[in-house]
Amino acid sequence: MIEVDYRFPPGVDGEKQAKVIAIGQTAGTWDARFADREEVLRSHLAEVVGVVTTSNGSSIATVRFPEINVENDIPSLLTMIFGKYSMAGAAKVIALRLPENYGTRAKVGMTGIRQRLGVSDRPLIMAIFKPALGLSAADHADIFEQVAHAGLDIIKDDEILGDLEVAPTLKRLEACRRVMEEVKQQTGRTVLYAVNVTGSATQLVEKARLLVREGANALLLNVLTYGFSVLEALAADSEIDVPIFAHPALAGAMCAAPEHGLAYSVVLGSLMAHAGADAVLYPAHYGSLPFDATEEMRIRDSLRSRNVFPVPSAGIHPGVVPQALADYGQDVILNAGTGIMDHPDSPSAGVRAFFEALERVKQGEPLNPEFLPDGPLRQALQK
Amino acid sequence: MIEVDYRFPPGVDGEKQAKVIAIGQTAGTWDARFADREEVLRSHLAEVVGVVTTSNGSSIATVRFPEINVENDIPSLLTMIFGKYSMAGAAKVIALRLPENYGTRAKVGMTGIRQRLGVSDRPLIMAIFKPALGLSAADHADIFEQVAHAGLDIIKDDEILGDLEVAPTLKRLEACRRVMEEVKQQTGRTVLYAVNVTGSATQLVEKARLLVREGANALLLNVLTYGFSVLEALAADSEIDVPIFAHPALAGAMCAAPEHGLAYSVVLGSLMAHAGADAVLYPAHYGSLPFDATEEMRIRDSLRSRNVFPVPSAGIHPGVVPQALADYGQDVILNAGTGIMDHPDSPSAGVRAFFEALERVKQGEPLNPEFLPDGPLRQALQK
Repeated sequence: MIEVDYRFPPGVDGEKQAKVIAIGQTAGTWDARFADREEVLRSHLAEVVGVVTTSNGSSIATVRFPEINVENDIPSLLTMIFGKYSMAGAAKVIALRLPENYGTRAKVGMTGIRQRLGVSDRPLIMAIFKPALGLSAADHADIFEQVAHAGLDIIKDDEILGDLEVAPTLKRLEACRRVMEEVKQQTGRTVLYAVNVTGSATQLVEKARLLVREGANALLLNVLTYGFSVLEALAADSEIDVPIFAHPALAGAMCAAPEHGLAYSVVLGSLMAHAGADAVLYPAHYGSLPFDATEEMRIRDSLRSRNVFPVPSAGIHPGVVPQALADYGQDVILNAGTGIMDHPDSPSAGVRAFFEALERVKQGEPLNPEFLPDGPLRQALQK
Repeated sequence: MIEVDYRFPPGVDGEKQAKVIAIGQTAGTWDARFADREEVLRSHLAEVVGVVTTSNGSSIATVRFPEINVENDIPSLLTMIFGKYSMAGAAKVIALRLPENYGTRAKVGMTGIRQRLGVSDRPLIMAIFKPALGLSAADHADIFEQVAHAGLDIIKDDEILGDLEVAPTLKRLEACRRVMEEVKQQTGRTVLYAVNVTGSATQLVEKARLLVREGANALLLNVLTYGFSVLEALAADSEIDVPIFAHPALAGAMCAAPEHGLAYSVVLGSLMAHAGADAVLYPAHYGSLPFDATEEMRIRDSLRSRNVFPVPSAGIHPGVVPQALADYGQDVILNAGTGIMDHPDSPSAGVRAFFEALERVKQGEPLNPEFLPDGPLRQALQK
């Protein structure tokens, strides 16, 4: 059974709205002409499990939908639970409970990403190519070289960098692949490069296959602007045997409003985890974007429960490492854009600052700049 | 040039936020290391055109983005104009101006739909199969037969009816195609059946091709739950030479909030019109869903400006025909679900009531039940 919690603001009759949803988002009503199909029609109706009123006057209604109404995927699920009803007035989907086997599973996942990197016992460090637009393929390779030799685990394109003339996707991959191979030869280490894959749905899947054939060892997808059905197609494709990093671009458009849309934890947690993502990016609550700590921890737990790597992002820098470790322990990817690329010394020093921070926290040593030896971490924290 | 108007609530510094968008959603910042690429980097930056403060203290900022940053499609556009920034705080995209040639054009469009139906001079009447879930393929054919012989132009699946065991998509099409052919033979009339096409992105496009090969003469797509990239793939596919009806399911999740997300007119108007839809459904402001009349008229105008049929929906019944004609004139598809299917006499009478209403309005006669002769329209209005 599929269970959804809807929150209605004070003044809305939650009981009534829950019934509207249970009927209107499923079979609808019927008259005597369909008496002979009564039993089948009934089997498609949803059921109001309960409605509670909170201390501030909001009501939370739980509605249970039959699995036979949907296609074991996210788009048909969204159409059912919040398709037409999203236009009916103030209501927010605050939780979604799906059957264990619903949807698509990560093909690579946390365990697979760790295996491919050969790193089992510490958080992974991830960087973003910056500036986001305007670098050439050679610039990408140059940056890649600096951060890869400094020990970085993963690097990704900025989500707004598509397949542009200034640095076509395949050219970026080709330029960076040479560095990936060189690092592998010299150090035995694998560095993942999550290449942003774009285009109309069929072209995008074709391009993803091409990128993998050409040596891409990870992909980045803006799931919400391209569509969950695209993530599901990539995840189900046997040729695409690399981890897919899901970016949350546009999530705020459907999650940030207090009384409309869906909770961040539903979209970036439950839905992503059942749509086949291997790692999911989302804002950290102590980062540069406003984000609720409870929602962040819900996302973390939803993702991990299905072997998906949580990737707190936006405003991540070496100074947040103690808090990140307290929140996440080892199973986390720390994703820093300017936190690495804008290090006062170099991107390479930016990477080393993160590893220095991880090591100090592991040793139980403080991160206050005054106790730190000269070096990348001290420079980063003094900035 | 791509121009976006963002509205910020009172208390937000619109000037500052506009700059954050113009830089943060494009190239970002860079330091002396990239001095040699200064010119290229600058060419990717967006520009703040102006910021005005409204009487209630909101501010509206216009930002102009370079076309070279995006891929002539909707997903890359959305990622740029509101990807990460959607998570940054209260802001709503209230208008979007795209270059004439941006994106994908409708393949069939208003003119093509009229040609295929052989109807040039009146609004088109469209119905929805109801109940939404639980009917068999034979039930669909039975309903189709009733409404088609009554003169209906178009019928569509309910948006929540996917490829389900109770009535698989291909079986519904097969059953209804026999009726379509029979009506064509007997009357020379074409009736369009917009079949709901679903599945993961690649499967969905394959299924759409199969449906067209098997005689589907229209498709329905839940663009927002499946993704704009899927609509673009269908629209660009030469095998899919039938009109695509875009359903607005989930639009409320990103459009209904007062201070977050995007305006309905941006998502269901501008974006749909540049993504290749042939007809777009959206709530009518006098219907059963809350909707703003100004937004509705903006959607109408955006769609028509690119030969896309506007399809006001939700709560449409024969009684609204005078207002619909006043708002739309002839170039509109009136889409009625229960307004046709729940007619006290029969779905067939539901269709005839609409045509009676169209005829009376054309003759300048009132629709008050007391002036009406006995018949479908009077029955419908008395309900």
